[in-house]
Parts: sequence; structure tokens; C-alpha cells
Amino acid sequence: MLTKNKKILALSGGVGGAKLALGLKHYLPADQLTVVANTADDFEHLGLSISPDLDTVMYTLAGLNDTDKGWGLAGESWNGLAALERLGGDTWFQLGDQDLATHLLRTQALAQGKTLTEVTELLSQSLNAGVRLLPMSDDPVRTMIETATGELSFQHYFVRDRCAPAVSGFRFEGIETAKAQTEFIQLLQSDELAAVVICPSNPFVSVEPMLSLPGVRAALKQSRAPVVAVSPIVAGMAIKGPAAKMMQELSMPASAQAVANYYGDLLDGFVIDESDAFQAEAIEALGIKTLVTPTIMNDLGDRIDLAQQVVKFSASLL
Amino acid sequence: MLTKNKKILALSGGVGGAKLALGLKHYLPADQLTVVANTADDFEHLGLSISPDLDTVMYTLAGLNDTDKGWGLAGESWNGLAALERLGGDTWFQLGDQDLATHLLRTQALAQGKTLTEVTELLSQSLNAGVRLLPMSDDPVRTMIETATGELSFQHYFVRDRCAPAVSGFRFEGIETAKAQTEFIQLLQSDELAAVVICPSNPFVSVEPMLSLPGVRAALKQSRAPVVAVSPIVAGMAIKGPAAKMMQELSMPASAQAVANYYGDLLDGFVIDESDAFQAEAIEALGIKTLVTPTIMNDLGDRIDLAQQVVKFSASLL
Repeated sequence: MLTKNKKILALSGGVGGAKLALGLKHYLPADQLTVVANTADDFEHLGLSISPDLDTVMYTLAGLNDTDKGWGLAGESWNGLAALERLGGDTWFQLGDQDLATHLLRTQALAQGKTLTEVTELLSQSLNAGVRLLPMSDDPVRTMIETATGELSFQHYFVRDRCAPAVSGFRFEGIETAKAQTEFIQLLQSDELAAVVICPSNPFVSVEPMLSLPGVRAALKQSRAPVVAVSPIVAGMAIKGPAAKMMQELSMPASAQAVANYYGDLLDGFVIDESDAFQAEAIEALGIKTLVTPTIMNDLGDRIDLAQQVVKFSASLL
Repeated sequence: MLTKNKKILALSGGVGGAKLALGLKHYLPADQLTVVANTADDFEHLGLSISPDLDTVMYTLAGLNDTDKGWGLAGESWNGLAALERLGGDTWFQLGDQDLATHLLRTQALAQGKTLTEVTELLSQSLNAGVRLLPMSDDPVRTMIETATGELSFQHYFVRDRCAPAVSGFRFEGIETAKAQTEFIQLLQSDELAAVVICPSNPFVSVEPMLSLPGVRAALKQSRAPVVAVSPIVAGMAIKGPAAKMMQELSMPASAQAVANYYGDLLDGFVIDESDAFQAEAIEALGIKTLVTPTIMNDLGDRIDLAQQVVKFSASLL
């Protein structure tokens, strides 16, 4: 278990990251875990401010997520979306009836001058997420996907176009002027920080925006706390999402080792799946300590086991 | 049947007015009917632009209204509202899942610079309302209810407080600078106008705002077309809503005759229910021709019958 007064900071994208965040929630005392979620895939749709990764993590921490579908709320209905279709509205982004309430409240609160941090706190408390959940920034950052046919906003690429276009690069609109969320950067700079856990999320579009916020990489390098990532690539495939496809399109091998290489000297430790054990030596050769363990999280027990392994591994790196 | 190239203009509030509007739709050719709906009960809620009367008329004309409940959409679900409650949001205004789609699209379209007329046309066409439906104005007008404990916005009075506060007066915020919708005022001034039908809606909060728009009363007086109202009060009671209660609070008798007296010389004809036949003589004494006929509209046949009676009655007044 973690030393008292020490904290784990977890950086998460959507579904994959949220699984580990949930494991960490169950393993750690509530006041020893802070989860920061990517907001560079946030977007405005039908006049609503939508934060897909933040909501996925929030719903997952609250135990309200649809574990079968992998996203959205359990027991969700789609009557509003059907009505929207009848009215000729945009329906490429699947908005559930319950999920809509989240976006309505967030949009209204932001319009009233609340920060995304404040809104997230209100929503998380109402849903009993039970963990301090922060957006990476209160300023808008928007991932743009560079493709052969031009630049696409992230949700157009990810949802509307189902990740079909070949990716040639990424741009995080607004990143230069965005400020890392205050608690996030303070925790990075704090002696209380025991470890930073980079959840098994897409390195390019989920994790990179958080790392690219002004001051974050510098704070990570200056921190004495180890930085540990869990590979989102297992046996050459992404458990969820387009990470492996992107790697191929960017002329990288789709492998755990390539992810370690991508993060580079930011990492003190890297957690890979047993099926990728043969890559451990090459990763260690990069100067990154490696933990080989089952990383596929099918049930809550898997999530808690992996969380425990990751926390213990990070403690061993001090 | 109506002379070709002549048009009926119906002025409607919500539920009661919408019933007669539907009857008129079935009785008249589509190009000979224009329905104007009150928008002074429009309001902004959860960041959404909501037009309750306009939507009630639109849903009713499209055959999509909930005839049991008397408002909203048939087969409506309330999962978003339940989620909103879980999030601690305002739930005093009942927003159905399908209905929300209407408000989302309208809010977005208005934010993009479309007029309420344009938005209403888009929505009406998508839902096959089949009638030219217009908001009374593209400018915001907001009914304020004066009560002993202060002024209330209309929806706070009507929905949140269930019409409980005693009413002492009304104020239509924005009415001085609002412009009557262009087609509405043009039709009032046109030789094509065969009759104006004031539907059985609340005289004070549904009809009065439409009449109070700059130029409307003057155009009605100058028009050669007869103005015919259908009494919303039958046997001393309002079929729906707080009209009778308001009349008592304003020290008027709650009667058809008092409604005729309220509209005064604006009216050429007044349609009252058989149960109020005894008031016909007194109404005629006001210089208002009177038609006594069954006015309670329980089914579609009743709606069409009354529409036919009203149109024929108006023709007899020329």
C-alpha cells in the first residue's frame, strides 16, 4: 500500500485508461488518487460542450458505464437521437438520453462562467465518482488529425469517419496558450507525488495532449516521483481504438516496444503484457524498467490487480 | 368551403388553441390556412430556447402530440430528465427525451443566426405539420405575471408554481420593440384575408401578447375580414389552464360573456358553447354576433366540426 500523505496521479484518455483508473480507485484510499483526463477530444456539438474522455472516466469511476458497449452509460436509451434524426439533425455522434443531461448541465454551467474543473467536480460528486477527477486544462485544446485529404477535428475523424482516414500527424489547437489545470500542475510539482501513472490510453491523441501542456513535461522531468506507463498495445494490437492503426500509418511498428520508444526518457517504468515479454529486454535497453504482467482488464478484479501491480512497481523504482 | 385565394388566419396559444388549429387544418386546403402561435411564454431553460405554445401547435398539427396527457409528444420518455435529477439539475420543467431534440435544434439554429420563423419552418417541415405555422414575432417577448408576492416569469408561474399565485396583472416584456412576424402582419393587411380566428386560448397570456404586438390591433381594425373568437370558457370553467382562475382573481366573472367583453369591439363574432346559450343575448348587445354550438373538442371529429362552423360563421359576417 502507498505511504500515507503520498499521492498517485493517473493520466487517462477514455475507455482503456478509465479501466485502470477504476482499479486504482478500488486499490487506493480516495485522498491518495487524482485522475487527470484528456480534454483535447472535447468538442461542441448541437450547441453542447461535450467532454468524451472526461465523461467516460467519470461514468466508469461512478460504476455507471456500459461495460458491454465499452462507452456511454449503462441502461442508456436513444429516444432523443431518434427524434433528432426525424428532425433532420446531425446524428453521427451518438448522444444517449441520460448522457445528454450531462452535456446540458455542463454547457449551462460553462456558459454561466464556471470552469470545466468546477463543472467536473459538481458532476462527479452528483454521480459519486469517489475520486478527484480533473480535466487536463480549463482552457480549450482541440486535437486535429492530419490526413492525406486534409485536417479533421478529432471527433470527425474518430466517430463520424470511424478512424478510416490514414493519419500523418497531429496538432493540438490551443495547446500553446492553454494552462495545465492548477491542481494537476501543483501535484506534479509536489513532494506528495508518489508516482505518475500513464494509463493504457492512446499515446498520440489521449496522452500526448496532457504531456504537451506548457510546463507538464518539465515538471515530470524535475519530479523525483517515477513515471510509469501501461502499454495500450498488447500483442501488436490496441485493446481499443485506433492506436495500432495510427502507429502503422506513422511508420512505427505497432508494438509495446514502439510505445516505450515513443515516450522515451519520460518513462521510469513501463508495464507490458505477458504476451509481449520478449520485448522486455529491448525496452530495458532504453533505460526503462519493465514490468511484465497480465494487462488485459476483463473484469473489476483484473483492474484492481493491475492497479496494485502498477503502484507496487512504481514504488520499486524510487 | 372558403373562396379560392382567400385565407384564414388562426391565432393560437397552446393545447386548446391547437385543437381548433388541427380542425382547421383538416377542413381547409393547406394553402388557405396560416396559424400564428403565441411566443410570449417562450423561455430559456438549461441553456435551451423553448417555445411551448409553438411546439404544442406544431406537434398537434403533425399528429405527434400526447392526447392523453394533453401536452408533449406521444410515446415520450423521460430518461434524460431522470439523469438530470441525478445530477442535481433543475427538473421542474418536464423535458421529454424526444422533445429535447426539438429544443436542441432550435437553440443551435437560433445561435447560428436563423430566425424563429426559419427554425419553425424547418421543424414543421421535418415533422410534416402540413400547415404554415408562424411565431407571432421573431423578437423575444416574455410574459411576466404580476402577483401579490411579486412578478413571476410565465413558466415559473405556470409550470413551477402550478398557477397557484393569485394574479393581479400581466406585463409583456419586450412587446414595445418587438415586431409582429412579417407574414403575420402582411396577411392581416392583405385582401386575401377571409377571417381571423382567435382560437379558444387564454385571453390574457396566450392571445393578448399577439394582439399587443405593435400594429396588430390597428391592422385587425382596418381589415375588412371579420374577427371571430371561440370562447375558452365553457359553463364558467376553462377547458384547460388557468383562464377561469385568472378571471376571478382579476375580479371578472369567469364566463364566456366576460371574455367577449374583454375582447370588446375587436370581435365581429364570438362562438360560445351550447351550455352558455343564455349569455348570447348579452353578448349580441355588445354588438358582437354570436354562434352557439358545441365547442368542447374531445376527438378529431369535434375539432373538424367546430372548424367548419367557425369558418362558415365568419363568412356570414362579411
